[in-house]
Amino acid sequence: MKKLKGAAILGQSGGPTSVINASAAGVFLEALKHEEITAVYGAKHGIRGILNEEFYDIGKEDVKELELLKNTPASMIGSVRYKLADPKKDPTDYFRLLEVFKKYNIRYFFYNGGNDSMDTANKIADFLTEHDYECRVMGVPKTIDNDLYGTDHCPGYGSAAKYVATTLMELYHDATVYDTPQVTIVEIMGRNAGWLTAASQLAIEKGQGPDLVYLPEKVFDYDEFFEDIEKKLKESSKVIVAFSEGVRDKDGNYIPEKYSDLSKDSFGHTQLGGAAAILADEVKKRFDVKVRAIEFSLMQRCAAHLASAVDVEEAFNAGREAVKSAVNGHSKYMIAFERVSNNPYKINYVHLPLSKVANVEKKVPLEWIKPHGAGLTKEFVEYALPLIQGDDKAPLEDGLPRFANLKKVLVNKK
Amino acid sequence: MKKLKGAAILGQSGGPTSVINASAAGVFLEALKHEEITAVYGAKHGIRGILNEEFYDIGKEDVKELELLKNTPASMIGSVRYKLADPKKDPTDYFRLLEVFKKYNIRYFFYNGGNDSMDTANKIADFLTEHDYECRVMGVPKTIDNDLYGTDHCPGYGSAAKYVATTLMELYHDATVYDTPQVTIVEIMGRNAGWLTAASQLAIEKGQGPDLVYLPEKVFDYDEFFEDIEKKLKESSKVIVAFSEGVRDKDGNYIPEKYSDLSKDSFGHTQLGGAAAILADEVKKRFDVKVRAIEFSLMQRCAAHLASAVDVEEAFNAGREAVKSAVNGHSKYMIAFERVSNNPYKINYVHLPLSKVANVEKKVPLEWIKPHGAGLTKEFVEYALPLIQGDDKAPLEDGLPRFANLKKVLVNKK
Repeated sequence: MKKLKGAAILGQSGGPTSVINASAAGVFLEALKHEEITAVYGAKHGIRGILNEEFYDIGKEDVKELELLKNTPASMIGSVRYKLADPKKDPTDYFRLLEVFKKYNIRYFFYNGGNDSMDTANKIADFLTEHDYECRVMGVPKTIDNDLYGTDHCPGYGSAAKYVATTLMELYHDATVYDTPQVTIVEIMGRNAGWLTAASQLAIEKGQGPDLVYLPEKVFDYDEFFEDIEKKLKESSKVIVAFSEGVRDKDGNYIPEKYSDLSKDSFGHTQLGGAAAILADEVKKRFDVKVRAIEFSLMQRCAAHLASAVDVEEAFNAGREAVKSAVNGHSKYMIAFERVSNNPYKINYVHLPLSKVANVEKKVPLEWIKPHGAGLTKEFVEYALPLIQGDDKAPLEDGLPRFANLKKVLVNKK
Repeated sequence: MKKLKGAAILGQSGGPTSVINASAAGVFLEALKHEEITAVYGAKHGIRGILNEEFYDIGKEDVKELELLKNTPASMIGSVRYKLADPKKDPTDYFRLLEVFKKYNIRYFFYNGGNDSMDTANKIADFLTEHDYECRVMGVPKTIDNDLYGTDHCPGYGSAAKYVATTLMELYHDATVYDTPQVTIVEIMGRNAGWLTAASQLAIEKGQGPDLVYLPEKVFDYDEFFEDIEKKLKESSKVIVAFSEGVRDKDGNYIPEKYSDLSKDSFGHTQLGGAAAILADEVKKRFDVKVRAIEFSLMQRCAAHLASAVDVEEAFNAGREAVKSAVNGHSKYMIAFERVSNNPYKINYVHLPLSKVANVEKKVPLEWIKPHGAGLTKEFVEYALPLIQGDDKAPLEDGLPRFANLKKVLVNKK
């Protein structure tokens, strides 16, 4: 295999997770080892950083700080939600990328993101090939939603799932404090795939979880929901509901959509709060109980203090594997996880063509979802449990996490 | 000092914290050591458990599980919000308590709670004395609000403060991911005292905190608030606001109160969500930016996985000290903390008469609060920093916290 000499650049894309920076640490620390990689760059805000020739010189950073990236949440070099056009319709951005790549002799391009980002990486790779510019393009997966096609699971999911299960267990204890009837509705992220809400089953297995669980994979029925609540209230004075923000009714409407027309017509602005707040209001109207809505909001995707050690390690390794693969001559692949066994838990890092992962969503299998909000089957538990194992978090300084502190030295524009 | 032989009972009262069970562990494990304490009971749902003769026999529990209580959030034996009447107006409950105490020979009564609970304990102690029933009554403080009079700080506060500061640091990283303008308003608990919201200063000290902080101790001005936001938006594309749920305007109205008339008149039901959601909506109307409201909700009071080691230890010791003091003949005191030094951090456990602590609220000193939401002074930081030190959490089992699992054997009614 021919050695390819040139600079490497990493872009972070899409919503943050607790371990997206762990993948960055993997890419950076591995790339700095290889003599054929002449410089290591971090694109400021993903693709836009490349288009604007704004990238950080990672070679100027302390290795100790790059190590701390493993336990620093969100996207340290900045993320972006920027969708490239179809190059056949508008190749402007692609020509600009080619120009920048040539100017800085960028020969290794790593893109860390979800399915949209893999689509972007794939289009860029094809365009560079068509224009005879040799550049190895590798995708590194990430998403708390766990909805990427072709990989057993995604970096970011394990930590978010651990947050959901742990926090639901703690809320369970909080909810049982008084003996007055009470319904608590917890809203969990996941627009179309319910993987994260499904993690509440891990708390249920401990006897300290929600009583009802609703995923977007199943059509939501309002009447059935209120019947489920009524039934549970007869069994227990406290009822906890885990509810995915992505749940939709038979008309395809999200919960806030169904109710937003009402408030829009009267007030001219959309309903405050999400699905949980609205459902809490509806439950309050029907039952004489205390009701509380809780949103896990951004905490579920950035609670690095509660990250899964397995997730941190896999995210880091995915970044390293991407670099090693590229140096070894591979291109146009995403690093994917293939599960070898559960006992002991073992995965292989494999190559998945970018074209295959782009824009496909992987949902929770319907046969894993029990009816009437009764949670998930044991197949889900066997799948998810290995992913939340172990603790790995930033060291404490003054009782608070010591996150990475990068110098962020911008490369001089040529 | 005369030895007093009889049973001991603990009641938990008011809202939960991460370490209220650590105090229970302290009371139980210490009480089980003393031969003059003939039985150790846990009242099911506080005072109501005593009135109903429903208490758990703690002697039947495994010591290992009682140790695990240290890291189990909320109130394991059940809490209550039940206010006893003035005994001069209606002594019914007091006579019933006396009857139960006599029947089970209860000679030690420990009550763990906030200022209301200390008031309750004080009234009971006085009544028992007046009716010549010898019983030693000791209060154990707890509240995330940190508003108890006469103690340097309260068990529960350190862990909640650590949650607030850590989570704000994580949200800071999440908020800086995109370069589009964005305002995030975070709502933090504290009805009348802003101690918990003040903890956001600890994140600010790290350069990873909110840009604006509003406490209930200062009268809130809407115009000033929007001016503060406008100014910050000129300095940075991302603005994070830490906002106490207890903030009130010049008319004494909480934020939801000011806006609830509006929605009540139009819809017939009260506004969904709290202060943050309403303010987010108002910011959205005034500025062309993305706005997000986040409520720390119950998580801030039950996130035992993020407890402060100092807090856990002090809560545990407060419980032990209460038992030791009672055995040594003391009564009608709350265990309070007296700070000896900050470097090294050291406290003394002292006795505060119950009558002094009852129904008095301790607020954040006004001179510690900077104007225009600019946070807290260094005096606050010196005060709060020692309280959030160290980690102490439940061991992991299957990647999730292994909380205490009590048998909860009810004592046979006599």
